[in-house]
This record gives sequence, structure tokens and C-alpha cells, in this order.
Amino acid sequence: MTPEFSFQATHRDEATHARAGIIKTAHGSFETPVFMPVGTNGTVKALTQEMLEDAGASIILGNTYHLYLRPGHEVINRLGGIHRFISWSRSLLTDSGGFQVFSLGPLRKIGEDGVEFQSHIDGSSHLITPEKSIDIQVALGADVIMAFDECSPFPTSHEDALKSLNLTASWAARSRRHFDRLHAGQSTGPNPGACTDSVGNTLAPWEPGTGGGQGSRIDGDQRFSGDPVNPGQAIFGINQGSVYTDLRERSLEGLLEIGFDGYSIGGLSVGEDKEAMLRVISHIAPLMPADRPRYLMGVGSPEDILAAVEQGVDMFDCVMPTRNARNGQLFTHRGKLNIKNARYREDGGPIDDECGCPVCLRYSRAYLRHLYASGEILGSVLNSLHNVRFYLDMMAGIRQAIRLGAFARFRTCFLTDLARGQDSD
Amino acid sequence: MTPEFSFQATHRDEATHARAGIIKTAHGSFETPVFMPVGTNGTVKALTQEMLEDAGASIILGNTYHLYLRPGHEVINRLGGIHRFISWSRSLLTDSGGFQVFSLGPLRKIGEDGVEFQSHIDGSSHLITPEKSIDIQVALGADVIMAFDECSPFPTSHEDALKSLNLTASWAARSRRHFDRLHAGQSTGPNPGACTDSVGNTLAPWEPGTGGGQGSRIDGDQRFSGDPVNPGQAIFGINQGSVYTDLRERSLEGLLEIGFDGYSIGGLSVGEDKEAMLRVISHIAPLMPADRPRYLMGVGSPEDILAAVEQGVDMFDCVMPTRNARNGQLFTHRGKLNIKNARYREDGGPIDDECGCPVCLRYSRAYLRHLYASGEILGSVLNSLHNVRFYLDMMAGIRQAIRLGAFARFRTCFLTDLARGQDSD
Repeated sequence: MTPEFSFQATHRDEATHARAGIIKTAHGSFETPVFMPVGTNGTVKALTQEMLEDAGASIILGNTYHLYLRPGHEVINRLGGIHRFISWSRSLLTDSGGFQVFSLGPLRKIGEDGVEFQSHIDGSSHLITPEKSIDIQVALGADVIMAFDECSPFPTSHEDALKSLNLTASWAARSRRHFDRLHAGQSTGPNPGACTDSVGNTLAPWEPGTGGGQGSRIDGDQRFSGDPVNPGQAIFGINQGSVYTDLRERSLEGLLEIGFDGYSIGGLSVGEDKEAMLRVISHIAPLMPADRPRYLMGVGSPEDILAAVEQGVDMFDCVMPTRNARNGQLFTHRGKLNIKNARYREDGGPIDDECGCPVCLRYSRAYLRHLYASGEILGSVLNSLHNVRFYLDMMAGIRQAIRLGAFARFRTCFLTDLARGQDSD
Repeated sequence: MTPEFSFQATHRDEATHARAGIIKTAHGSFETPVFMPVGTNGTVKALTQEMLEDAGASIILGNTYHLYLRPGHEVINRLGGIHRFISWSRSLLTDSGGFQVFSLGPLRKIGEDGVEFQSHIDGSSHLITPEKSIDIQVALGADVIMAFDECSPFPTSHEDALKSLNLTASWAARSRRHFDRLHAGQSTGPNPGACTDSVGNTLAPWEPGTGGGQGSRIDGDQRFSGDPVNPGQAIFGINQGSVYTDLRERSLEGLLEIGFDGYSIGGLSVGEDKEAMLRVISHIAPLMPADRPRYLMGVGSPEDILAAVEQGVDMFDCVMPTRNARNGQLFTHRGKLNIKNARYREDGGPIDDECGCPVCLRYSRAYLRHLYASGEILGSVLNSLHNVRFYLDMMAGIRQAIRLGAFARFRTCFLTDLARGQDSD
């Protein structure tokens, strides 16, 4: 296991599987359950890194598939890794690219060795193997990286899901092996990916604060060479098996045999109904090791997150807050609000009376509606800021409730409020 | 003249016509020469009001034409005026709509009474007269508003320019008259546009800080009714006459006869060459009253601004910093830089070594190039923030140089640096 990475469950809810804890990575500690805003192209869409810091984001996500294609992992590696490239000194996680490649549909061909696909940008052909995915992720240097997996489409037969599972199991072992090979010897001696500044001091690129986020001027002369840039990386395995709980168990057994720093639940929110999704989560999450973080990938709505926290999930990511924001859909404590709605034309009040975000403190629904109607960039910025803050605040509320032994009550109140609604569209 | 508005020249450069001064409006004081970022639709594109405040913007511009069409001046008026609508508690200026209507080309028809045009949004028909323009601007409630003018196309014959000039002169008189009528009696008794808060206190909407910008929560119950919302408004006249200096003089005489709080130079940067533009400015600016601000509309590049300051111009606006930013063109002390350029792909340095803006302190050219190439909103945000800050910093440098009696030297050094260049494209 990676020594720079740890998880400790600090509080367990008595009535449910919910738990609060602390994850430590090479870029600092944060509390769980945690929501990770998605920064596909190395940017959480429409938000500055300063806004994310102020909103309380402790870890964000980057997409391996996108960053591999543009600007390329070698470029990012030569510039010091993903943290330095995007100037983010807190924790960061990259996915394996498996899900994105799966999403390409007819543009990809899955084989035993890996996945051949055509770039959505220029149509160029690429082959991603488990080893290649790990190469890319080690070059990017996130704090947590993911084993390469195949995500079954939905619906899929038990037989096909089993076949896919076996492929994922073999890819998980290859991912772990390659990860260990690349990181072998990293903990002793000077870091080969370390950067030397102009006066010869060795700078650890993974050290919080060196990303330039603390007001220190960035320096074009600080170049890295070599790989990996982040010796403190952890690697998670991904549980698959579609909606079949026996396959989910079998998948988990395989992952446990290999051994990972954390365990993810993949292959959900791909078309199955909510009930099936929750059935899988409530079956598999409590079976995952209690001393490792559990990460539910790509899920979901506030309601989904509350349900998964109840089953003991610790980490979440989803594009929902940012994507919905750009489409004018805003999260509030009384349910979703569609800022396009004509009723907000002369509404001088904030998006959400109960929200303390910079948008709700300063800007009115009428102004946000106007910005949306005018296609103004500022509309996307402010809407995204509010929605991300809403998610992060919700997670803070969840953590506090768990610590207080009152998660079930928090969940009931939160859902009751959400259900009151304020928007008919 | 408007009592809430004043201009005082505090320093005069001995070698040139350049001068530094202080303008006081109903929303506070600021130093001149000043650059006003353009907020067409009630937003300086891609920037939050917090960013503008932090960058040092003391006055911004709104476009009457755009705000009249969307969301409508009545809506903004009912919400307390433009300051409250966009949450901007510093000074604000609106143009008259004349230039935008002029820019519509075949969509507009100019008559003695006003301009008939079709909306660029939905094709609906509208008539803007001088009275209507003032109605709209008084309803919006900016601190400085403009008389309605006709902007001659370029090139235009002396005869046509004279005809247009006479129309503008008559419209200027009608604008002033209507402005006075609407504001008559405003300085005595309670303000009919004032807002009463939930505990019955009268809030002056034009008072700095009531825009919610100081962390105070916005309140949807604070509605205004009536008009004008800003009794401290000032009105400027616009000098026209194309490139003909005799007509420019004649136009100025007409404006002086009417009397305005400030005098603008309009109708430039519409296709004439730089030499012709500078000839007009250097002829007419020094003839304008020394005790009133001089505003050069829609101009221009850093070089243009330096040249106009030298002729005694005090106020500027231009879309260049924000528009160019969205197209990837960045201003630096060594000339323009095109972030699209492949040479910046692995450039870990800041946009401009000499710039202290939040973008240059934190983000690299390589990252900004990646954001641009990926079409990411954050690219527009960061590029705009840098460019606006570059303009505002340049103005601060100009003001300091004038106060030190060293404007000519500042200008020479600044232009020499700019000419050194760093980008071949």
C-alpha cells in the first residue's frame, strides 16, 4: 500500500452504514464523505481554482482520456504534473479513461489487450491498455489514480457481464502490477521527478503550495523531467458486474486479492433504474473493506448521494452540478430551480435563501436569468459556482450529521426540504 | 449642472495636454485618466463584479441599446436600477444607444425624429428618439448618461457630415431638455425612486454599498417604483463631425451652447486611419472646456489611449481588452501575445513577467493555451481578467506619471516596451 495515502474512519453512524473519516494524500488531508467536482480538461468548467478553493473543494477530478488527447500527458509531465499544470495544490484524482472510452460507442473496439479507439477531437487512432492507462496517470501525477476497467453497457446479460468482469479483473491485476513497477524504489533516494529551482534546491512538486496557489509567482524555469512526478500516488480498484450482485461480489473478491488503496463502485448510472442502482450499492458497499475508502463513480443527484452515504460510501464525483449550471438548472434546499423560467424575470431575491455562497449573497435571480437569456459567460460562471458550493455544503452537512450521530435525521430533513420544491418545470 | 457630479483637474503635464484629475459621481470618486471596461449586457463579459472590483475598475459602461431590448429598462428600473440589478456599487455610465443603432446598418432608418430599427434579437421594430433614449437611461439610473447622437459612417462627405451634425445638434438639445424635465425637482424632498426596506428605512439606491457588494445579503423585497432611480445623474454631450475639424469645432460650439456635465468625442474608430483619428482628437480635445471631463468613446488600443491622454482626454472605453481576450489575444508590456501560438504549448511562465494580476501570479501560458484550445470557459475568464487588469494598470501608470510630471517619458518607455514585441503572429 502507498505510505503517503491513508484513510481513517473517525465516526460511524449507529443507525446506518454511514461513516465519517479522514483521507490523507500526498497533497493534504480532507474529511469524508467528500464530493469531488469534475475537472474534465484540467478545469472544473467555468470556475477558477481560487473559486474552488474558496468554495471548500478539497479534491477535484481530472479525466485521463481527455488530458491524454489534449494537451497530452507528456506535456503535462514535463510541466511538472497535473497539479502544477493547472495550479491546484490540493488533492486530485484521475479516472482510468475506461469509462470515457466505453462512452465512445462505435468509435471503440475492446480486446483482451486493451481498447482501440478514435479520438473525438481529430479521429486519430489510439490503443489504451491497462499499462498505458497507468503510464498516463503516473505521468499526470494525481494523488489517487484508478485501475483500467471495462464498464458494461446497460442492459447486459449475466453472461456478458461475467465476461466483461473477467476482463476487468485481469486488467486490474495488470494495472496494479504496472503501477508497482513504475513506483518501485520511489520511496528511497531523491525523487527522479523532482524539480530543481534556480538556486539548486529540490522542490517536491507534490508538496502543497508549490502549485503557485499561495500567491507565489509561477516560474517558467521550473521544469520537471522524468516520471513519476508524484511518488505518493495511491491506486484504487474498480468494482464492476452490472446489476448482478453475485458478479459484484465476485468482482470485489478479485480486487481484494490484488489489494488496492481504495475500492470504487463503477458501472452505475449508465441507464439502470434508481432502484437497481441502490440495490447494487447497498449490497456491495458494506462488503468493501472498512479500512479503505469507498468511491461511487459518477453518481449523482443529492438524493443519490444521501442514499449511498447511508450505505457507507465515502467519495463521490459527478458532472451534475456544473453541467446543470450551464443549462440553467440550479440546486437549492427546496429542490431544483430553472433560472430560464419567466417567473424569475423580476425576482430580486437570491437563488437560495439558505445558501451562503458568494452568488446568493450578491446576485439576484433576475440578473442570473438575464445573463442566461443573453448567453453571457458570467451566467455559466455564477451558476456553476452556486451549484458546486451547494454540493460541497451538502457534504459538510452530511459529515457533521454523522459526527453528531444524526445522519438519518439529517437525511430525512434534507429530503423533505428538497421535496417541497419551488419550480414547476 | 448636476450637483452630485464634479470634475477637478489636479495635475497638468507641462510638456503635453495630459492632465490628471478626480471625477465625483453619485457612486463615489475616481481618478482620471480612467478606462471603463465595457459591460454591454450588464456584465463585463466573462468577469464577476468581484473580479472587476479587485482589478481596480472604478467605473464601468453599460449599453442602452442592449439593456433596452433585454431585459428591458422597465424591468431594471423596477428592480432598483442598473447598479442594483447587476450588483455594482461603483460608478457606471450608459451610452445613448446611438452608436449601436448606427451599427445595425440596413436594420435601421434615420429620420428627423429619431431612429427606427429592428431588434437584432427578435426582429421586432422600435423607434428611439432623443427623448426615448433619455427615458431609458434615466430609468436605468447610471451615474453618467449620454445625449442621443447620430454617428456618421466612414467615409462620409463634408456635406453629409454637416447634415448629420445638424441632426445631432438638435438631438443634443432635445436630450438635455428631456433630461432636465425628468430630473426637475429631484434635489428637493424625498426621492420618488427611493426604496423602503422591510423595517421602513429609506434606502438610497445610488448610495455605494447598497448594491449588495459588501457581503450584505440581497433582498428580493426591496423593490423600487418610479423613476428616476438616480437623481445624481450627469449628462454628457457628444461631439461629431467625422474627420472634418471645422465640423468638429462647429459641433462643439453647439454643445457648449446647450451646456453639459462633460464632453465626448464620438464617431471615431469607425474605419478612418489612425492618423485621421489622432488629427481630430488633437484638434478638438484641447478646445473642450478645461473644467469638464473629456471622454473619447470606443477607443482603443494602448497606443491610441496614450496618444489621446497626451491631448487631454480623461475617459476611455473599449471592448478591445475583453473581446481580444476571448479570441486568445493577450496584452503584455512587450506587446500582444497570441495564446493560440504553438510556441506556448510547454511554456510554464506567466503571460506577462511584469504583470501582478491574479492570472499572471498563478497560471502558465501552457495552461491558458490548453484552455483556449479546449474551448474552455475558464480560458475566457482568465484571459479577460488579465487584459482588463492590463488596461487598468496602464491607466494607473499614466495617472502616476502625470502627477510626477513625467507623462512624456512614461509614454516613450511604455511604447518602446510594447514595440519590443514577443509574438510574431
